[in-house]
Amino acid sequence: MPDLLIQNISEIASPEGPGPLGGTAQGRVRRIPDAEILCRDGEIVYAGPAAERRARVGDLPGAERFDAGGGTVIPGFVDPHTHLPWAGSRELEFAQRLAGKTYMEIAAAGGGILSTVRATREATEEELAANVERRLDWMLACGTTTAEAKSGYGLSAADELKQLRAIRAAANEHAVDLVATLMAAHEIPPEYRDRRERYLDLICEEIVPAVAAQELASFSDVFCEEGVFTPAESRRVLIAGREHGLLPRLHADEFVDSGGAELAAELGALSADHLIAVSERGIEAMAAAGIIATLLPGTSFFLMKHTYAPARRMIEAGVPIALATDCNPGSSFTESMPMVIVLAVFELGLSIEEALTAATLNAACSLGLGQRIGSVESGKRADLLVLDAPNLLHLAYHFGINPVAAVIKNGRRVHPVARAGG
Amino acid sequence: MPDLLIQNISEIASPEGPGPLGGTAQGRVRRIPDAEILCRDGEIVYAGPAAERRARVGDLPGAERFDAGGGTVIPGFVDPHTHLPWAGSRELEFAQRLAGKTYMEIAAAGGGILSTVRATREATEEELAANVERRLDWMLACGTTTAEAKSGYGLSAADELKQLRAIRAAANEHAVDLVATLMAAHEIPPEYRDRRERYLDLICEEIVPAVAAQELASFSDVFCEEGVFTPAESRRVLIAGREHGLLPRLHADEFVDSGGAELAAELGALSADHLIAVSERGIEAMAAAGIIATLLPGTSFFLMKHTYAPARRMIEAGVPIALATDCNPGSSFTESMPMVIVLAVFELGLSIEEALTAATLNAACSLGLGQRIGSVESGKRADLLVLDAPNLLHLAYHFGINPVAAVIKNGRRVHPVARAGG
Repeated sequence: MPDLLIQNISEIASPEGPGPLGGTAQGRVRRIPDAEILCRDGEIVYAGPAAERRARVGDLPGAERFDAGGGTVIPGFVDPHTHLPWAGSRELEFAQRLAGKTYMEIAAAGGGILSTVRATREATEEELAANVERRLDWMLACGTTTAEAKSGYGLSAADELKQLRAIRAAANEHAVDLVATLMAAHEIPPEYRDRRERYLDLICEEIVPAVAAQELASFSDVFCEEGVFTPAESRRVLIAGREHGLLPRLHADEFVDSGGAELAAELGALSADHLIAVSERGIEAMAAAGIIATLLPGTSFFLMKHTYAPARRMIEAGVPIALATDCNPGSSFTESMPMVIVLAVFELGLSIEEALTAATLNAACSLGLGQRIGSVESGKRADLLVLDAPNLLHLAYHFGINPVAAVIKNGRRVHPVARAGG
Repeated sequence: MPDLLIQNISEIASPEGPGPLGGTAQGRVRRIPDAEILCRDGEIVYAGPAAERRARVGDLPGAERFDAGGGTVIPGFVDPHTHLPWAGSRELEFAQRLAGKTYMEIAAAGGGILSTVRATREATEEELAANVERRLDWMLACGTTTAEAKSGYGLSAADELKQLRAIRAAANEHAVDLVATLMAAHEIPPEYRDRRERYLDLICEEIVPAVAAQELASFSDVFCEEGVFTPAESRRVLIAGREHGLLPRLHADEFVDSGGAELAAELGALSADHLIAVSERGIEAMAAAGIIATLLPGTSFFLMKHTYAPARRMIEAGVPIALATDCNPGSSFTESMPMVIVLAVFELGLSIEEALTAATLNAACSLGLGQRIGSVESGKRADLLVLDAPNLLHLAYHFGINPVAAVIKNGRRVHPVARAGG
């Protein structure tokens, strides 16, 4: 394919990691005005001042040109925590919650996660894949170029594998890259309520080996939380996964401090996620172990808790922050990383530079992809967003709108779809 | 022009006023499943069950057809409070605020509203009109079909009239309908700081008569707030406007209770806006006088006040609620009514039905347009949105994305722009 030369960029804004092509950062952003970017074979080969470009790489008569219209270019968003392959919908529960019912009351009445489990078990793999693709369309329109997606609404060997195959099938059809996580330990299924140890046996002895043998996932995840899985149970599941090559990550300390952050540190998890109720001891353990904190402010917002993770304290302690949508039907139905960034700035108290870093480079690192994506640097994959904005600050300043004017994936424009002659 | 028949609508959701074609409502929404809508000469002539349509209006071989794709149709949004005609940009102040400076500190250092006044005075009418048009593009994409726009960054006779002419010029070029408001009493300009009575004389004796003579505005507005204009000053300005045919509305009780709500009731204003600090007495006065409360949750969000107007209390007291963006460069830079609706549901505590009513019919009533727009009813103007959503509840449930798939204005599709052959 021909080279792609992106011209008329008002500024490039990219997180800067500590070394070449990798490592988490904490809000140090390089801003290059009046810039151009050259993409070749799906990679960035030049990103810098327009004036230097010609001297460096010549006139490039064979290159395709894309006019950024004076917009800002940032890395494609990386969304490292989603529950995409679900069936059914829960807007009626949502309306009940608005009318005053609590999440726990709704769950006790047979709603909540188990209603999604029922619908997902009834769905075919093809139906789930179509649902994932529709959600990926929204994600791409909002600038996400790589996302993680978890199982966890099947809660049986057949249905967890069905979810993971749906993720793979959707990824094969779509421009957005997907990384899959096995999360059979999302909840105890109803048929195992009185024998939870047997469900843990099923996960560790059947589901994990089958997923690993079929190479259906890269990670394993557990909902380590009071009333769901204990730290000891979570440890067992994550170690079983690790023995089969599934790297650990976990839902930790979302509602109460249950030692999830410390467990993440103990196991060397790639990420501990949620952390609304994380303790000071948990923060220190994560900092010491270099664990990334993946924060999900859309979930706090959607659940109307008015309580957000202590992001500033974690940054002060040296914990790298990533951001994700948590896209799911019960506690955060959004595919939009721009919305998550706005909530991170307005509610978590991140600076715009910190939020950009968290939504790109640090999110990539939490998926083990920090060497390939997450910043605008020569040698990285050309996953780029053109924002309809004169500079990076507009990413939060101009809020509530979708700032993404165009998406470049692997060096090709994929959104909006180019018109004939356009 | 040919009739337009909108088919394959999963549901129509429209506020229901107390009588035919008019009057505010409070969250009573009519939902019609499996519906069609017929538009003729820019008006709705049928909106109801698809099965009844053919019996009522026949086969319609000459009608243009639009497939809503199984989406939901609601009225076009009406945004009754914006400050669109400004020049300059204030993202640097925004970043300072994120770093800990207060709005008042920034204003004291020469930033804030007066920096926008300087830039707006320096801009030409054509530049301002171009800025308004660009903001109207965002509004239309987010589903706004009618908006109010205020002057108030000129603060001189020449510059206030320039702003109002820019509104008119932009409206002539754009699909979105604009209603103009004179708001010379937005702030005391620096050159009148030591003689504020003279500025009030200027407004009442020169600016108001000139605006009225040139028919440049329908409304007049005042920032009635401690440190800006007193209730007595506000009364003088609004009465001067009313004597020249400019109907009163006002910024009331945004930061502290300064009697703005009571003044709105006394003067029979079409709307009192902001009301974060409104008193119980003010609420009762508004309820007794039938004054619409226009709430601006984007402003609370953007200023990170974590304090929102007491919407539920006002609804209980019988005050009709409208919603608006307050789109402006200093305290709420968004054009998105979907974002405002999400904030209204999640932060003001409105039901989805109340938020829909507030963003359409009640907003139309606050502009004196309740007879013409704001609901999906035969006889009203065909200003309609097709949402990429199976039902109304998704308008808040599926948050952070732009749900507007298509906009119909005056019975014609205007967004997204139809492609050749599409």
